[in-house]
Amino acid sequence: MAGTDSTQQLELKPGPVVILCEPQLGENIGTAARAMANFGLWDLRIVNPRDGWPSDKARAAASKADHVIDRVQVFETVEDAIHDLNFCYATTARTRDMYKPVIGPDVAADEMVAPVAEGGKVGFLFGRERWGLNNDEVALCDKIVTLPVEPAFASLNIAQAVLVIAYEWRRASAGADNLPFSTRESEPAKREELVGMMLHLEEALDRVNFFKTPGKRPSMVANLRAMFARAQMNVQEVRTFRGVVAALDRRHERPNPKRDQSKFEKKKDAE
Amino acid sequence: MAGTDSTQQLELKPGPVVILCEPQLGENIGTAARAMANFGLWDLRIVNPRDGWPSDKARAAASKADHVIDRVQVFETVEDAIHDLNFCYATTARTRDMYKPVIGPDVAADEMVAPVAEGGKVGFLFGRERWGLNNDEVALCDKIVTLPVEPAFASLNIAQAVLVIAYEWRRASAGADNLPFSTRESEPAKREELVGMMLHLEEALDRVNFFKTPGKRPSMVANLRAMFARAQMNVQEVRTFRGVVAALDRRHERPNPKRDQSKFEKKKDAE
Repeated sequence: MAGTDSTQQLELKPGPVVILCEPQLGENIGTAARAMANFGLWDLRIVNPRDGWPSDKARAAASKADHVIDRVQVFETVEDAIHDLNFCYATTARTRDMYKPVIGPDVAADEMVAPVAEGGKVGFLFGRERWGLNNDEVALCDKIVTLPVEPAFASLNIAQAVLVIAYEWRRASAGADNLPFSTRESEPAKREELVGMMLHLEEALDRVNFFKTPGKRPSMVANLRAMFARAQMNVQEVRTFRGVVAALDRRHERPNPKRDQSKFEKKKDAE
Repeated sequence: MAGTDSTQQLELKPGPVVILCEPQLGENIGTAARAMANFGLWDLRIVNPRDGWPSDKARAAASKADHVIDRVQVFETVEDAIHDLNFCYATTARTRDMYKPVIGPDVAADEMVAPVAEGGKVGFLFGRERWGLNNDEVALCDKIVTLPVEPAFASLNIAQAVLVIAYEWRRASAGADNLPFSTRESEPAKREELVGMMLHLEEALDRVNFFKTPGKRPSMVANLRAMFARAQMNVQEVRTFRGVVAALDRRHERPNPKRDQSKFEKKKDAE
């Protein structure tokens, strides 16, 4: 889905911190940074990246999420990386012999909204590519977040896991207000405009004897009206549809050369 | 997040169809297939893939989501690809001059649950890498789904968009029941066990004169109890904590050689 709007100014809003624990590949750091940027996160912390920092590979893979890459902080231990957080979630795909609540990203995101709005700091800790988080690292966190993956096909890379968490944060933090656009709001038609349109149509249909059995007219009209009501038409569409009805209607008033032609031909055939 | 459980049998459950419109790169088809598999989707349809089908690149990028790749259907037009769907969403990142409802993936997923449960077919149409969907393609769909991306950093690749949609479907279709695990449930402690533990602690604290001002004891006790109640301790943790209290408590009963030593030294100093 292309669509970056370069006229829009980036604003770094308060949101959760993402902590990557001992990532091996710079590419994964970069794609995670990009996933964060897609949904408005920017505070990325890395514990002991195997290939050091800064990383050209990470910057390249971040595809212009430079505002995230430039702000990366590197720490030696998970404890250091989460020192200032009020609440931390361990993101893991494996079951643990640990008594901690296990929740989905949607619940986690909903929980975070109020603390972040009140100035609190929350974070998501992600594990290594190969074996995720160690138990002592999970133990530092308040809760476990896991994704509702298909158990038989559960391998998500770090960037994908970060993407879902970041998406959920953005959904939860402002919901539909965060959608990047809505269709241009043409003014929804008023009931009287709709009814006018329906009457227009019904009159036209009467003229062509559409409602053959008079007894059935009311139910047929009701069904038609229900259909148009469901369509939630706007002012412009009502106008357009009235035009359609008028055009079709006039066809029955005005001589139609083609039809006259065919009548003529039929007549000829009949001779 | 590693963690595919190969002992689990894949089951193809009813779910939304994913339609990719004229994808250019086999890799993108593959990573989209993998994202689908992660969250249990399997019906992938492709309209006019630029590089043809089958595609070795797609299969490689799908990292073993062969059950999706093997079932891919290729169509010449979007109309053909969506012919059997009862409901179709256009997934797009661009605003449209079209009067169609615009919703987020969460709302779309919630809406789909009932129709799919009743045997209906729903689908998500995704556009080309470069320019997404044409207006006439969007017009074929019932609603527009867009992701709540950061407008200044909105470029998501197809696989990422598919991932979020697939994730939302799985979340909506069974919610927390779909989480791949919960922590082994140690039995939550009963109230009487908790109260016993608290009394144990309070008695021990009394012995060391922790509650210096008797008038403040009730409120201090209430605060302590509230704290422990919040922790939602399990049976094992209550047992462990009672052990902690007992151990600390006994320290005050038994002679502490070090403390006696220092007393002795102080006495000596005083001489």
